[in-house]
Amino acid sequence: MENLNKTDIGLIGLAVMGENLALNMADKGWRVSVYNRTVPGIEEGVVERFINGHAQGKSIEGYTDIARFVESVAVPRKIMMMVRAGSAVDELMEQLFPLLSPGDILIDGGNSNYEDTNRRVALAEARGFRFVGAGVSGGEEGALNGASIMPGGSVSAWEEVKPVLQSIAAKASDGTPCCQWVGPAGSGHFVKMIHNGIEYGDMQLISEAYWVMKNLLKLDNGEMSSVFSQWNEGKLRSYLIEITANILQHKDKSGGYLIDKILDTAGQKGTGKWSVINAMELGMPLGLIATAVFERSLSAQKELRKSAAGHFTCRRTEVVYNKSEMVGDIYSALYASKLVSYAQGFAVLQRASDSFGWNLDLASIARMWRGGCIIRSIFLNDIAASFEGNEKPQHLLLTPYFSNEMKQLLSGWKHLVAQAMKEELPVPAFSSALNYFYSLVSANLPANMIQAQRDYFGAHTFERVDGLRGQFFHENWTGHGGETKSGTYNV
Amino acid sequence: MENLNKTDIGLIGLAVMGENLALNMADKGWRVSVYNRTVPGIEEGVVERFINGHAQGKSIEGYTDIARFVESVAVPRKIMMMVRAGSAVDELMEQLFPLLSPGDILIDGGNSNYEDTNRRVALAEARGFRFVGAGVSGGEEGALNGASIMPGGSVSAWEEVKPVLQSIAAKASDGTPCCQWVGPAGSGHFVKMIHNGIEYGDMQLISEAYWVMKNLLKLDNGEMSSVFSQWNEGKLRSYLIEITANILQHKDKSGGYLIDKILDTAGQKGTGKWSVINAMELGMPLGLIATAVFERSLSAQKELRKSAAGHFTCRRTEVVYNKSEMVGDIYSALYASKLVSYAQGFAVLQRASDSFGWNLDLASIARMWRGGCIIRSIFLNDIAASFEGNEKPQHLLLTPYFSNEMKQLLSGWKHLVAQAMKEELPVPAFSSALNYFYSLVSANLPANMIQAQRDYFGAHTFERVDGLRGQFFHENWTGHGGETKSGTYNV
Repeated sequence: MENLNKTDIGLIGLAVMGENLALNMADKGWRVSVYNRTVPGIEEGVVERFINGHAQGKSIEGYTDIARFVESVAVPRKIMMMVRAGSAVDELMEQLFPLLSPGDILIDGGNSNYEDTNRRVALAEARGFRFVGAGVSGGEEGALNGASIMPGGSVSAWEEVKPVLQSIAAKASDGTPCCQWVGPAGSGHFVKMIHNGIEYGDMQLISEAYWVMKNLLKLDNGEMSSVFSQWNEGKLRSYLIEITANILQHKDKSGGYLIDKILDTAGQKGTGKWSVINAMELGMPLGLIATAVFERSLSAQKELRKSAAGHFTCRRTEVVYNKSEMVGDIYSALYASKLVSYAQGFAVLQRASDSFGWNLDLASIARMWRGGCIIRSIFLNDIAASFEGNEKPQHLLLTPYFSNEMKQLLSGWKHLVAQAMKEELPVPAFSSALNYFYSLVSANLPANMIQAQRDYFGAHTFERVDGLRGQFFHENWTGHGGETKSGTYNV
Repeated sequence: MENLNKTDIGLIGLAVMGENLALNMADKGWRVSVYNRTVPGIEEGVVERFINGHAQGKSIEGYTDIARFVESVAVPRKIMMMVRAGSAVDELMEQLFPLLSPGDILIDGGNSNYEDTNRRVALAEARGFRFVGAGVSGGEEGALNGASIMPGGSVSAWEEVKPVLQSIAAKASDGTPCCQWVGPAGSGHFVKMIHNGIEYGDMQLISEAYWVMKNLLKLDNGEMSSVFSQWNEGKLRSYLIEITANILQHKDKSGGYLIDKILDTAGQKGTGKWSVINAMELGMPLGLIATAVFERSLSAQKELRKSAAGHFTCRRTEVVYNKSEMVGDIYSALYASKLVSYAQGFAVLQRASDSFGWNLDLASIARMWRGGCIIRSIFLNDIAASFEGNEKPQHLLLTPYFSNEMKQLLSGWKHLVAQAMKEELPVPAFSSALNYFYSLVSANLPANMIQAQRDYFGAHTFERVDGLRGQFFHENWTGHGGETKSGTYNV
C-alpha cells in the first residue's frame, strides 16, 4: 500500500497561522506533515522549534527538505500553503510541481488576490493538478480553535478536502461548519477579500461609536466598556463588539487603561484596499469600506494631523448630552451603518458572481461568516435568512426584515450624524452610510446635471426621462460647435 | 533637402478630439498630416470627409495609407496619436515602429493609464524612438481653440514638441500657455488622471449644490441659474460653474427646460476610478473623488433606486428656509468641499512624485489647469501661489491663504450638511469633505481602537503614545494565547 505510513495532509509555512492550523488538524485526528523553508539568519530552526514545542506529542511530522515533505503525504496529496501572499506562492508552486503526482491538490490558505488565484487554478489544472484558493479568517485564535474557511477553485477537489477543512472550521451555533464550497476559480479569495473589507468597515464604525461616546458624552473607559457589553447582548452581538468591551477595560502592567496608550496610527495590509478597487472595477458603490480604508491612511499621517490641529481649533460646545438618548442614537448609527456596509458588500459579491459566472450562494456565504471569523455575529443569521429562497432579493436593505430595521434606526442615526457635524467631530463612516442610504432611496438624483455637463463639454450624450432607455441624445448647448458625438475623448 | 515638402506633424485618429486638434494646429500655421484607419462598415471615408469638410482650404493633408502618412512628416517626426486608450495604442505603435526613423517622437494624446505610458516610454526608447504621454483636457471645444496639455515622458522630446503643443494650448489670463513639461515616464498621464478625478469631484459638488437649492429651497431653474451666475463672478469663477448656469436656463426645442428632461444616470469612462485606485495604491485618502465615482455608479442603478424609493419615504419637513442664508451656506459647502478635493488631489500628486521620483512642480501643474481644461478656474491661481516658493507646504489646507478661507467657510458648511442630514437629502461629497476636514485637524483619532482590535485578534502589534515611533508592542489581551506576533496573517 503506497499510502501506508503516509500523513493525511501537508502544511507549508509555520508562521502563527500555519502553526495553529497544523495543531488544529492534529487535534481533529489528522496526521500532518509540516515544512518550512530554512533561510540562514531569518528562518532557522523554525520546524525544529515547532516540533519540539507546541507540536510535541501530536501527530505532526516536521520536514526541512521539501521533497521528503511531499513524499511523506498520502496521494492524491492535499498540501496547504500558508505563506505570504504574492510571488512567494508562485515560487513555492514552481518548487512543488516537479514533486507532485497527477491529481494532487494545492490549497492556498493565504490572503491571495483573487486574480492571482484565477491564474493559479488554471495553471495547476493545466499541469494536471488541482488548486483550491481558500480564504481563512479568524486570526491565530481561529486557526487554532476553528476558523471561517472559504474555499474555491478546482471543484473536483472539494469532496477530498472537505473532511479536513470542515473539521478545522468553526461551527455556527446550529452546528454547521463555517466552511462550504464557494465556487470556481478565485471566488473563495474574492469572498475572503470582501469579508476583510467588511471587517475594515466594522472596525471603523466601532471606532466612531467609541469616539462619540468619549468626546461628546465624555464617558470613561469603564462606562464605554459597559455600553459595548450591553450591545453585545442584543442585535449587535458579535466578536468585534465583544473584544471592544474587553479592550476598553483592559489595563496593562502599570495599572492604567492600555487603550489610552495606544498610538492612533492604523496599519493595513491590503485586503480592504483590494475590496474597494474591485468594487470600483465592477462599477459598484462600496463607500463605507472606502471610507474606512482612507481613514486608516489619514490616521497614519499623524504628523500632518498634529500640524493641522495647530491651525484649526475645534469649536465644540459644552452641551451636556442626555446619556441614554445619545447612546441610543449611537447604537442606531452603528447598527444602520453596519447594515449599509453589509448590503454594499453583498451587492458587490452578487455583481462579481454575475460578471464572472460564479453562481455564488449569498446565503451560504453569510452562514459561513457566522462563526470563526473576525466579523462573526448573530445578525449574519438574519442576512442568511434574507438571502434564502428562490427569489433573489434586489438589495439587502429592501428585504422585509432589514427595511423595517432601517426605518426604526433612521431617526437616531441621522440625529447623531447631524449632531457630530455641528460639534466638528469626524464620523466619516456613519456619514458615508447615511448619504448612501439617502441616495439609494432617491428615485431621482442630481446626476441629470452631471449628464448635462458631460454632454455640454464633451458631447457625451444623455438619456431622457421621456425617452427609451438606451436611446442617447446630444444637445447643441451653445448654438455653435458641431453635432459630432464623443469618440476617443474620455472623461 | 529630405524634409522639403514634408509636414510639421502627423496626427492619427479623426474622432472629434483628433479632428479639432488638427484644425487647431493648422490654424497656428503648422502643416499637418492626418491619418485614420479604414474599417469597412465602421470607419469608412473618415479621412476623405474630414479633408473635404472642416479641413478644406487648410494646411492639412489626408492619408489612408499609414506608410505614406509617416513618410509625409518631416524627420525627426512628431506623430500624435488620438486613438482609444488601451490596446489600440499598443497595436498602433507596433504598426508605426517599422516605419519610423531613429529619434522620431510619438505623442499619445489619449487618456492612457499612466502605467501603460511608463511601459510605452521605455519600449519606444528601447527601440531608439521617443515617446510623450500627453494628457489633453478641454473637450472638443478645447481641442479646437486651446486645451490644457500635460506632457511627460522622453525629456529630450520636450524642446521639439514644445512649439507645436504650446501653440495649440490655451493661454491663461497672464498669457502663459497651459502646457508645460510635467516629468518623466507616465507622469503626464498621471497628472491628467488626477485632473479628471478632480473634475468628477467638482461635478458631483455642483450637483449637490443644485440638489439642495432645488429640494430644500425649492428654487426654480431660472433662480438657480442666477445663483450660479453670481457665483461665477466671485471666488468660484470657473468653467463648470459657468456652464451650469447656462445649462439651468437652457430650453430645448419644445420650450421646456432641458435639465428636467435628462435622465439622472451618470456615465463614466474610467479616469475617476483610476484616480481613486491609484490613491489607494499610494496609501493616500481621496475620499471626495471616490464619493463622486460611487455616486455615479449608484445613479446608474436607476431601477434599484426606484424600488428602494417605494420602500422608504423621505420625511422632509415643510420648513421654509431663508433663501439668502441657505444659498450662503451652500456656497460655503461647495467652496470648502472643492478646496478639500483639490487638497486631496495635490497631496496624491506629491506622494506620487515622491514615490516615483518624478520631481513634480505642483505650482506649474496648478497653472497649467488655469485655462483650456474642464476644471479651469480662477482659484487655481491661488493654489499655484500657495505652492510657489522653495518651501513645500505640508498640505494645501495648511497654507496661510487657504487655512483662512476654511475658517471663514466652516460654519456655513457644517450647518448645511447637518441640515441636509436632518432633511434626509443626500449630500455625499459635502459630507465626505467635511468629515475629512474634521479628521485632518484632529491631533487624535480613534485609530487607537483599530490598532487594539488588530493586536487583539491578529497580534498585529501597535505603537504607544509614550514609545518611540517604529517601536511596536504586542499585548496578551486575553491572558491565554501566545506571544507570537503576526506572520502571514494579513488583515
